[in-house]
Amino acid sequence: MPASSSPTPELQIDLSAIAANYTYLKSLVAPGVDVAAVVKSNAYGLGIDLVVPALLEAGCARFFVGDLREGLHVRKRLASSATIHLLSGFGAGDTDECISSRLDPVCRSLPEALASSGRLPQLSLAVDTGFSRFGLPLSELATLVHQTSRAPDLLVSHLACADLPADNTNVLQHDRFMAACEIMRPRKRSLAASAAVWLGNRFHLDVVRVGSALFGLNNAGIEPCPLQPVVALKTHIVDVRTVQPGEAIGYAASFRASRRMQIGIIALGYVHGLPWSAANAISAVIGSHIVPVVGRVAMEYTAIDLSDLHPSLCLPGALVELIGSGLSADAMARAIGTVPQELLVRLGSGCRRQYVCRPLASRGAFH
Amino acid sequence: MPASSSPTPELQIDLSAIAANYTYLKSLVAPGVDVAAVVKSNAYGLGIDLVVPALLEAGCARFFVGDLREGLHVRKRLASSATIHLLSGFGAGDTDECISSRLDPVCRSLPEALASSGRLPQLSLAVDTGFSRFGLPLSELATLVHQTSRAPDLLVSHLACADLPADNTNVLQHDRFMAACEIMRPRKRSLAASAAVWLGNRFHLDVVRVGSALFGLNNAGIEPCPLQPVVALKTHIVDVRTVQPGEAIGYAASFRASRRMQIGIIALGYVHGLPWSAANAISAVIGSHIVPVVGRVAMEYTAIDLSDLHPSLCLPGALVELIGSGLSADAMARAIGTVPQELLVRLGSGCRRQYVCRPLASRGAFH
Repeated sequence: MPASSSPTPELQIDLSAIAANYTYLKSLVAPGVDVAAVVKSNAYGLGIDLVVPALLEAGCARFFVGDLREGLHVRKRLASSATIHLLSGFGAGDTDECISSRLDPVCRSLPEALASSGRLPQLSLAVDTGFSRFGLPLSELATLVHQTSRAPDLLVSHLACADLPADNTNVLQHDRFMAACEIMRPRKRSLAASAAVWLGNRFHLDVVRVGSALFGLNNAGIEPCPLQPVVALKTHIVDVRTVQPGEAIGYAASFRASRRMQIGIIALGYVHGLPWSAANAISAVIGSHIVPVVGRVAMEYTAIDLSDLHPSLCLPGALVELIGSGLSADAMARAIGTVPQELLVRLGSGCRRQYVCRPLASRGAFH
Repeated sequence: MPASSSPTPELQIDLSAIAANYTYLKSLVAPGVDVAAVVKSNAYGLGIDLVVPALLEAGCARFFVGDLREGLHVRKRLASSATIHLLSGFGAGDTDECISSRLDPVCRSLPEALASSGRLPQLSLAVDTGFSRFGLPLSELATLVHQTSRAPDLLVSHLACADLPADNTNVLQHDRFMAACEIMRPRKRSLAASAAVWLGNRFHLDVVRVGSALFGLNNAGIEPCPLQPVVALKTHIVDVRTVQPGEAIGYAASFRASRRMQIGIIALGYVHGLPWSAANAISAVIGSHIVPVVGRVAMEYTAIDLSDLHPSLCLPGALVELIGSGLSADAMARAIGTVPQELLVRLGSGCRRQYVCRPLASRGAFH
């Protein structure tokens, strides 16, 4: 019988690994290229309050946050000269706060750009080169130049297919971005996000914006993964039971025991951010053993198959890892059929977050 | 240009509809049957603080919460004689808090049952009849009877296939549960959760435990749905753009424009709880028009196709509904390939929650 009836899963976040990944990414670009950190959506769910200072200490001086609220939050904790860009663009009501908190919105439309140009000390601008989301289309740039003589401090665009290096869209977007730079003559140019770091120097330009890669996600699919793993997902066995052949395990009887089985119930369900679609598709680690998840993922619990383990390992309270110990967030996302970024933001908001910060000497080589 | 650059999606929660669903479910069972509310996981993500009082007012006097923490939280706000059961069972360290806050853990193992029997004023017990998760197997009941002469106040089991009425598992679990009741002679018996309300009277016994159905989810698949919809998911258009034929929309170019299109970008992404797997699979409503989601769901944004709408409807700031106005959470979950419970807990934690409480007169008939 457990001491407490309420064990909760834990997402362990290694701040040293985030800093090490920053340093590594910096080593992949030329010395003059600025590596900015994308920490939108509460640093991909990992907690902006601790992630930003770790990056600042690693030498990062430029941050992209989601919106004004996040920008104000970060600026309060960041009494430094670091630059904070707002990815959500410029709202007419945001002028005073942008000025007083030194926040630089990345304007995403012609009206935003014209308003910002007249009101804010910096002008940052997004152009749409083939993502069809935000940013001025190339056809509107001439109008902007005609209406304001001001050159942007930063010109930004976003690649749709950077994790598909052979896709023609990358070259097409690059060429369009260079054409936009010809028209706008920005002080700094930024096209590459995480995966595009590996597309080659010509994509790096002046500022690369890395989010996923900082958090250990291998969007570019480089093997072996050159990034340090950042998150580990840990929970405990809360119940162990013997299941007879033919008995069903979990909702809809999606798994039936083909033999006498030992089943462990772990405290981890879709309320904690493990997707329901992980049913019968992913694995967990106990000690040095890999065991499969069996049956559906329920709201707070999931079942794992302990049949092949020594009974001494199969006790309530035993530690179970679902990310970490060789199981990557990337691999889990592939098995489930989603992107690892979604896993991070879901687990980060659904689990208890615990931070670790290892001394340099204990870290393994990562490249 | 929007007044604010940071519109956020909103999950509207209709407390009156929850109360009405409670009343309706009560009408489906015999007068002596107790209808208990399952409000674990923060009332399925909808906010236990407001959901519990609404249910109390509707006449609910028995609640099932997830764990001790939730039980203590609810008891503080519920200075009433309502019964609060803890689904997470009984931990040895929880005795004092269970007694002082009148919380009744549903014991899930023989050691828990024996400990609870000696320490707590109430004895509630789960038996496993075919779900292979928690609860004493039938084979252990004789041992329990042998070691404690105390009859349980409540005996509980949970059906694996209640939303599959033709599945033999239901009858099998029912018969096993009746056998367990023969052995344990509990004061009250509880086998049915939401979907099992529609399996017939013999499943109702003394206490039915409803969660999903309270929140408008039609797990039993009754057509037309007899439950009032509880949640609405609303957001706004933040950008509208013209996309030329052949251009890609969003990540990985998973959607390409086959004609000149008008695309709306809405403030709703997987950080808000819209699953990434909703890409190219679900619809939204603007005014009285249904429009498809196109391309991948990104972290904070999703694209919708506005091409067939009058331009006056396609402006930044326009209201967009993804659940509500005829689009049910059940239908969205089916389209995405998940269960609606997962949608609720994800949207409830990812979106701003807003509560509505309509006067009785404005409610439509629901049966």
